[in-house]
Amino acid sequence: MISVGIIGSGNVAQHLISAFLKAPEIDLVQALAREQSHLTHLLHIDKITSDYKALKEVDLYIIAVSDHAISEVSNHIPFENKLVAHTSGSVAITELNPKNRQAVFYPLQTFSKNKEVDFNSIPICLETSEQSDCRILEQVAYSISSKVFNITSNQRKSLHISAVFVCNFVNHLYKIGNDICNEHQVPFEILHPLITETAQKVMMLSPDEAQTGPAKRNDTTTINAHLAMLTDENQREIYKLLTKSIIDNGKKL
Amino acid sequence: MISVGIIGSGNVAQHLISAFLKAPEIDLVQALAREQSHLTHLLHIDKITSDYKALKEVDLYIIAVSDHAISEVSNHIPFENKLVAHTSGSVAITELNPKNRQAVFYPLQTFSKNKEVDFNSIPICLETSEQSDCRILEQVAYSISSKVFNITSNQRKSLHISAVFVCNFVNHLYKIGNDICNEHQVPFEILHPLITETAQKVMMLSPDEAQTGPAKRNDTTTINAHLAMLTDENQREIYKLLTKSIIDNGKKL
Repeated sequence: MISVGIIGSGNVAQHLISAFLKAPEIDLVQALAREQSHLTHLLHIDKITSDYKALKEVDLYIIAVSDHAISEVSNHIPFENKLVAHTSGSVAITELNPKNRQAVFYPLQTFSKNKEVDFNSIPICLETSEQSDCRILEQVAYSISSKVFNITSNQRKSLHISAVFVCNFVNHLYKIGNDICNEHQVPFEILHPLITETAQKVMMLSPDEAQTGPAKRNDTTTINAHLAMLTDENQREIYKLLTKSIIDNGKKL
Repeated sequence: MISVGIIGSGNVAQHLISAFLKAPEIDLVQALAREQSHLTHLLHIDKITSDYKALKEVDLYIIAVSDHAISEVSNHIPFENKLVAHTSGSVAITELNPKNRQAVFYPLQTFSKNKEVDFNSIPICLETSEQSDCRILEQVAYSISSKVFNITSNQRKSLHISAVFVCNFVNHLYKIGNDICNEHQVPFEILHPLITETAQKVMMLSPDEAQTGPAKRNDTTTINAHLAMLTDENQREIYKLLTKSIIDNGKKL
């Protein structure tokens, strides 16, 4: 059994707690949250503290807090030479206080409060400052996921940027599609199969092979008709920039 | 049995032919293609013609050709008062020659040559210039799909624009994510679960509820770190514009 403590009570912390509670190899000893009440639906109150002095000794502390708070939280851990990992895609491993052994435990997924996730298919990207900590971190990762990767800080940063494009920005395009549907009293549900197919297709074809649409065909008649119909200036700007980018990319192929 | 003829040999025409061949209610009488060889893997050569004069009389002609060719193709049909539908999301129903009864049969999906699709879950959007043709068009649509919608020309155009955002532009963002991964020797496959989850999430939560990421949190530290790491000017422009759009939207909520 590997003993684990979680620091934090946001989306990532809560999803990790749920996953570890189901993992027989893991003893989730304690969670630390400023507001204990945020976690009482998941853990018995005895296992939640808001006081760093009450933090118990465990094999691995996972800091799942906002990026800007990671460094300070790591200063508060009242131990030395313990294994401490943060869960951020963009924060350097060296932001963690070096009095403990630094590590990263980055689950690459989008977590929302009201949507359960199947942790087993979530890639977990690991990094340790000491090579000898690699194995225990892998054990913890494999206890909740079948997809575990050792990657460098630089690779993790690039993954995080990619994730912004393929998740955060993609969701924003869904939002614009939804807005346009609402404006014309068309149910957004008509687009669900297209959204699913577009996501599935890019796992079987390269994004270049999968590209379709007026910009790909350089179909200026349709592009101009769309621009004539779009009245929202922000939507028009995004339409123009992404269309130009697809056309320019087509010239390179 | 409803007899159907298809004009065209591109992605949409081929996927429609495959679907109609499996539909017991439909008699696919003939397909017309400039190059008969494009369809011989799907249909017996006797059922393919390249000559409009050889076109047989059927209950419904479906014109599945490029948008700009629809009008001309409809002129070539050597009959009158027949039901003729095009399959485009953006072309007006009135582009079809009015010597025949005009209709639209628009399957809202992204079709690629090397990727099979399950037609049954593809929404088909219908429009007819004569109300009395509505029923036969619905019968044909329901013979291959369980999702059939009667929508107006204007609604169809708005759907087509939405589809550009949630499919064509989304795929282009996948491409950028893929490029960034390649640049840093990270397998794009690590992002597949995130892509799937992002698409699934928007079917259970509204896009506003589903939005996550640095722009949503107005996390300028991470945004600036990402911009510092992105060297491609086009990627930077897209990053900036979509980040700004998400931040501006957050202010409205």
